[in-house]
Amino acid sequence: MTPDAIDPLTLGGAECLELLRTAAVGRVVYTDQALPAIQPVNYAMDGDRALVIRTAPGSKLNAALRGAIVAFEIDEIDPATRAGWSVTVVGPARAVTQEAEIDRLMRLLPGPWAPGRRDAFIRIGCRQVTGRILAPAAA
Amino acid sequence: MTPDAIDPLTLGGAECLELLRTAAVGRVVYTDQALPAIQPVNYAMDGDRALVIRTAPGSKLNAALRGAIVAFEIDEIDPATRAGWSVTVVGPARAVTQEAEIDRLMRLLPGPWAPGRRDAFIRIGCRQVTGRILAPAAA
Repeated sequence: MTPDAIDPLTLGGAECLELLRTAAVGRVVYTDQALPAIQPVNYAMDGDRALVIRTAPGSKLNAALRGAIVAFEIDEIDPATRAGWSVTVVGPARAVTQEAEIDRLMRLLPGPWAPGRRDAFIRIGCRQVTGRILAPAAA
Repeated sequence: MTPDAIDPLTLGGAECLELLRTAAVGRVVYTDQALPAIQPVNYAMDGDRALVIRTAPGSKLNAALRGAIVAFEIDEIDPATRAGWSVTVVGPARAVTQEAEIDRLMRLLPGPWAPGRRDAFIRIGCRQVTGRILAPAAA
């Protein structure tokens, strides 16, 4: 299914972007020692073509994401009706290394941590963005 | 991090299992044409060592999962405080092919679909189960 498919269950690119701009927590999907891995993370969109997540420097997650093609997902699903939506981004993850860029991202994606702590930021390029409506009949 | 690590942020095996028993929607993480993929699905635990998901026969998801090692995740996160929990299962996915078994699983994981439709079921073995508390300070 491509984002442009004429399918009532598919969200358009603009709708996906709007949902990506409003949510604050998503799940990054990557490979950890050859096994599929997933972890919830805080994030923010950085323009229309990338999102940034904040990780602890030296963490396993930080190491696993660098240079990899990852997926990133947000969703909202009613547990009672099982109806809702999901948006998935697939793209390359890159560590942000420029000091000025890190300063800017710390303001874009503030953390609750003690001032002075230098967190690591990973930028995920939104190379492929797809979204769909989860109707109860669409398993 | 292993499920038995002494870490205040780690959930024990019994807690993970209890959370897996109470939720109804999770996310299956797999590989689709060499790229990481994730999709929300309805599921039910089938005993303590496996969970089952219901898919459309012949679907892309159904094909991608057969025989693969996949991850499966549930979580509950407060968007305001970013606090919550997540549980991740990693294990082999196998198509359920026995008719008697499919009949049993249709009762275990009822679908809203028209009667008579034969859905496909995938069983995911809970080979590795980990869970953690998502405190705002633990990115």
